[in-house]
Amino acid sequence: MDDPMPESPTSSNHDPLPSEPRSLASIDSWWGEFDVVVVGFGVAGGAAAIEAVRAGASTLILERATRGGGATALSEGTIYFGGGTRVQKAAGFEDTLENMHAHMKGAAGPTADPEKVRLYCENSLEHFAFFESLGIEFKDTYYDEKVIFPPTDDCLIYSGNEQAYPFSEEATPVPRGHKPKKEGSAGGHIIEKMITTFGALGGTIQNESRVQTLIRSDTGRIVGVIARVEDEDVAIRARRGVVLTTGGFIMNRPMVEQFAPDLADCNYPIGSDGCDGSGIRMGMGVGGAAINMSEGLMTTPFFPPVGHIKGLVVNKHGQRFINEDCYHGRVTDAIKKKAGGTAFLIVDDDTYGQSMGGYKIVAVEETIEDLEKSLGMSEGQLVHTFASYNRFAAEGVDPVFHKAKKYVTPLDHPPFAALDLSVGNSVWAAFTLGGLDTRPTGEVLTVDGQIVEGLYAAGRTSAGLTRSGSHYASGLSIGGSSFFGRMAGRSVAAAD
Amino acid sequence: MDDPMPESPTSSNHDPLPSEPRSLASIDSWWGEFDVVVVGFGVAGGAAAIEAVRAGASTLILERATRGGGATALSEGTIYFGGGTRVQKAAGFEDTLENMHAHMKGAAGPTADPEKVRLYCENSLEHFAFFESLGIEFKDTYYDEKVIFPPTDDCLIYSGNEQAYPFSEEATPVPRGHKPKKEGSAGGHIIEKMITTFGALGGTIQNESRVQTLIRSDTGRIVGVIARVEDEDVAIRARRGVVLTTGGFIMNRPMVEQFAPDLADCNYPIGSDGCDGSGIRMGMGVGGAAINMSEGLMTTPFFPPVGHIKGLVVNKHGQRFINEDCYHGRVTDAIKKKAGGTAFLIVDDDTYGQSMGGYKIVAVEETIEDLEKSLGMSEGQLVHTFASYNRFAAEGVDPVFHKAKKYVTPLDHPPFAALDLSVGNSVWAAFTLGGLDTRPTGEVLTVDGQIVEGLYAAGRTSAGLTRSGSHYASGLSIGGSSFFGRMAGRSVAAAD
Repeated sequence: MDDPMPESPTSSNHDPLPSEPRSLASIDSWWGEFDVVVVGFGVAGGAAAIEAVRAGASTLILERATRGGGATALSEGTIYFGGGTRVQKAAGFEDTLENMHAHMKGAAGPTADPEKVRLYCENSLEHFAFFESLGIEFKDTYYDEKVIFPPTDDCLIYSGNEQAYPFSEEATPVPRGHKPKKEGSAGGHIIEKMITTFGALGGTIQNESRVQTLIRSDTGRIVGVIARVEDEDVAIRARRGVVLTTGGFIMNRPMVEQFAPDLADCNYPIGSDGCDGSGIRMGMGVGGAAINMSEGLMTTPFFPPVGHIKGLVVNKHGQRFINEDCYHGRVTDAIKKKAGGTAFLIVDDDTYGQSMGGYKIVAVEETIEDLEKSLGMSEGQLVHTFASYNRFAAEGVDPVFHKAKKYVTPLDHPPFAALDLSVGNSVWAAFTLGGLDTRPTGEVLTVDGQIVEGLYAAGRTSAGLTRSGSHYASGLSIGGSSFFGRMAGRSVAAAD
Repeated sequence: MDDPMPESPTSSNHDPLPSEPRSLASIDSWWGEFDVVVVGFGVAGGAAAIEAVRAGASTLILERATRGGGATALSEGTIYFGGGTRVQKAAGFEDTLENMHAHMKGAAGPTADPEKVRLYCENSLEHFAFFESLGIEFKDTYYDEKVIFPPTDDCLIYSGNEQAYPFSEEATPVPRGHKPKKEGSAGGHIIEKMITTFGALGGTIQNESRVQTLIRSDTGRIVGVIARVEDEDVAIRARRGVVLTTGGFIMNRPMVEQFAPDLADCNYPIGSDGCDGSGIRMGMGVGGAAINMSEGLMTTPFFPPVGHIKGLVVNKHGQRFINEDCYHGRVTDAIKKKAGGTAFLIVDDDTYGQSMGGYKIVAVEETIEDLEKSLGMSEGQLVHTFASYNRFAAEGVDPVFHKAKKYVTPLDHPPFAALDLSVGNSVWAAFTLGGLDTRPTGEVLTVDGQIVEGLYAAGRTSAGLTRSGSHYASGLSIGGSSFFGRMAGRSVAAAD
C-alpha cells in the first residue's frame, strides 16, 4: 500500500462531549443535589418527573429550551388509549383491554417489545386517568373522518391501522386516538398542564440548562450530570438516578445518516432542536446499548382528501404494493422499502382532491394507456393493474391487497392523474424510533443485558413501545413516552 | 398503575462480561507484554498481525479455538480483486482501477463508506501482491459459469452484480472474484498460509485463549486484555494497542434478534463459534459506536442450475420485483425486504433443474392459470406477469426489470413448477454486516466521532467495506477484512 492511511484528526484535549462521562472523582462541588434528575421536559420527562415527585423524591427537570415542550409541544397531541375509555363508551365503541392487546400484538409489529406492549395495554385505563389527573380534559365525541387529527376539539379518531388489512382481522376495529379537548393541535396544552402539575407538587424546573455529560462513579454508577446553567458548567448530583428523556435524533443530520440512512432522505424532520440524540449518545458513552437505530416513522400525507385512498398507489413499474387505506406511515414505509422510494398516486376525476402534501401532478391523461406512457412505464403494466383492480372493484372487492370495501370503487372517470409521492419530490416527514435499550422500568441496559446503575431512559431516547415505521399509529409516541416515562419515574424514585 | 413493574434481575456481583472493561488499576501482574495484541485469528486478524510484525512490532494473536480459522476457514476463499490483476489479464479481461471504482461506487450501495471503497479499489493490485507474498497462488484461468464458486482450482469468476442491471450500465463488467489455486473451498488454505507466514516472521500465536474483556487506563486508553489462558484469567499488556478481529455476531441468537431481526429468520448462520459478537460488545463497552447493526447478507442459492435464472421470481401476489440475474444475495435481500419473505421461483420444463437449496416444489401444472390457482394467488396476476414477460422475451428483452438478454427466453414449455424460495421454507444463509464504527485505519470511533485510544477493529467486528445485503459480492468479506485488517495492523504498529 502506498501509505493510503489518511491523517488522524487530533483527538487529545477535546472538549467533553455527550458520549464521554465525567468521573465523580473530578467533581469539586455540587451546584445542587436531588434524588432524581430528569434531562429534558417533553412528555416523557414530564411524566417521569411527576411520578417521581409524587413518590416523594426531590426532583429536578433540566430543560435546554426556555420552556418545556420538546417534540410533544409541536405535535397534535393525540394519545393512544383503549380498553373501554369513558370517551370510547360515550361515542358508542366497545373496546376491552384484551381487544386492545390483540390488536397491538400484531399492529406493533414483530420487532416490538412484547412486555412493553402488554404493560401498555393492561394499564391503558389507568394511564387515561393519569392524564385526567393533570387537568387534561377529553370530549366524549368521535370525529368520523379519515384525518391526521381532528381540526376541532373533538376527541376520538381512528389513528392507526385498526381498520386496515391484515390488522382488521386480528381484533375488532375501534378508534383509540384520543386528542385533548382543544381546537387543533393539543401537544403544547399537555405540556403546560404537566408544568403546572409538577410545579404544584413542589418539583424544580431549571430551563435554559443544557446537560453536557453524565457523571460516573468508580463503581460505574451514574450519580449526576454536568449541565450548562447560566453560562457555566455545573455539577448536579442525582442521589437515586438520572432519567434521560431528551428525545430522538432526527435533528442530528450526521447521526441520521450514519444510523438511519432511510430517514436521511426525508425532507421534513419532526422534532424540536433538542432531538439531536444527546441522551442516546450520553447513554452509549457509559455502555448503554443503542438498538433499533435504523428505524423511524416516515410519512407523506397523501390523504385527506379521503378520495385519495380510493386511488391506487403504484411503484415505478406500475405495480401496486400495499393497501392504500393503511395508516399513512405504513403506506409511506412501503414506498421507501418495497418500492425503493418512488411511487405515484393514480386518481381519476372522481377521486382527486387537494391535499396537504403539495404533490406535483406529473401526468394527466384521458386514458390509462396514455398515463402509462407519460410516466415512462413499461407497456401494459399500469394498464393491467387498472384493468384488474377495476374488474374486481365493480364487485366491491380488492382480492390482491384487501383495501376495505368502502374505499373500493372502479376508477373509470377520466381524466386520470398521477401525483408524485416519491421521497425527495414531496413532503416526507420523519422521526426516529431507535434509542437506548431499556427494561420497562426505564433502566438502561448494556449489550450484555446488564443494568447501567443509576441510569434510566424513556421516550424517544429509548427504544420504546413501537419500533417500526410499518407498524405505528398516531398517539403511540405521546402514549408510550408518557407511560414508560411514568414507569421510569416510579423506578428511579424507589431506587436505593 | 397496579405496580406493573417486573422484578429487577440482580445485577451486582456479576461476572465480568465482554462489554464491561477492567480498570488498569486493578491489574496486579501481566502474563505477557506485547506491542500489539490481536484478538481472533480469521483473515482480518491474520492480516493485521502480519502487517504489525512486518512493521517491527512484537505481536500476539489470541485465538479462542484450537487453531486459527474463524469464518474465513469455513468459506470458499474467494477474494475480490480488480484493476487488472495478472489473472484478469491472462484470462482476457481488461479492468482498470478506475473501472473497478466506478463499479464499486454503485455496487457497494448508498450506505457504504466512500473512503473505504476508494482505498480498497486504489490498492487492489498491491493487495493481490500481499496474498501472493503469503505463498498463496492464483491460477490464470476463468471459470465460465454462473456459480457460487468454482469447484475446480480455477480462479476467476463473476462473483457479484457486475453483469446485472443497473450495475452493468455503470462500469464495464469484468469478473473480480479470485479463488486461490485449490480444488473446492480455499478459505482454510488462506489461513494456513497466514499461520505459516506469521510464525516465520516471529509472531506469537496463543490458541485456546479466549479474551474476556478489555483493560482500560484512567485516561480511557485501552492498554490490554483479560484472557482465559489454560483455565486461568490473565492480564496481557498491549503497549501500542489492541486489534479486535473476532468476527460478527451471527452465532449470538439474542444479539441477532435484538439488532438484526431480519437475519433472525434465516435458518443457516454462516460463521464459526467465535462469531458471537464478543469483539463488538467489548468495543461498545468502552464507548465504541456499533453501526449498521440491522444489516446482513442473506442468501438462498436458487442457482445453479443457470436455467433457474431464466425463471421468474415472484411474490405472493404473482408480481416480479427484481431481475433474477442479480447476485443471489441481492435477490434474496429483495425477497425479504420487498416481498415480505415469501417468493416463488417459477420455471418451465426447459429451465427447471436440481439446485443446492433443496427447494420444495409447491405446485406443478400444465398452465399458468392452474399454477396461479394452485398457489392461491388472485386471479389474473401471475397470468399477467407471464404473458407480459413472454411477449417481450420473444424479442429477447425484459423492459420491466432488465434481466440480461442471455437469460431472457419465453417460458412456454409446460409443465410449469413453483419452487418455494420463502424464508423459513428453504435454506437461507446469513451473516452480519454491522459492527464497530472505524476509520479506514481501524481506529474505533465513539458516536461523537472521537477515537477510543488504543483500540482498533477490522473484519466483521467493524462496519467495513460493504454494509448492505442488497449491495454485496462474494470476495468482499475476505477482501475487505484482510485489506482493512492490514491497515489496522500498520496503524497500531505505528502508534505511540
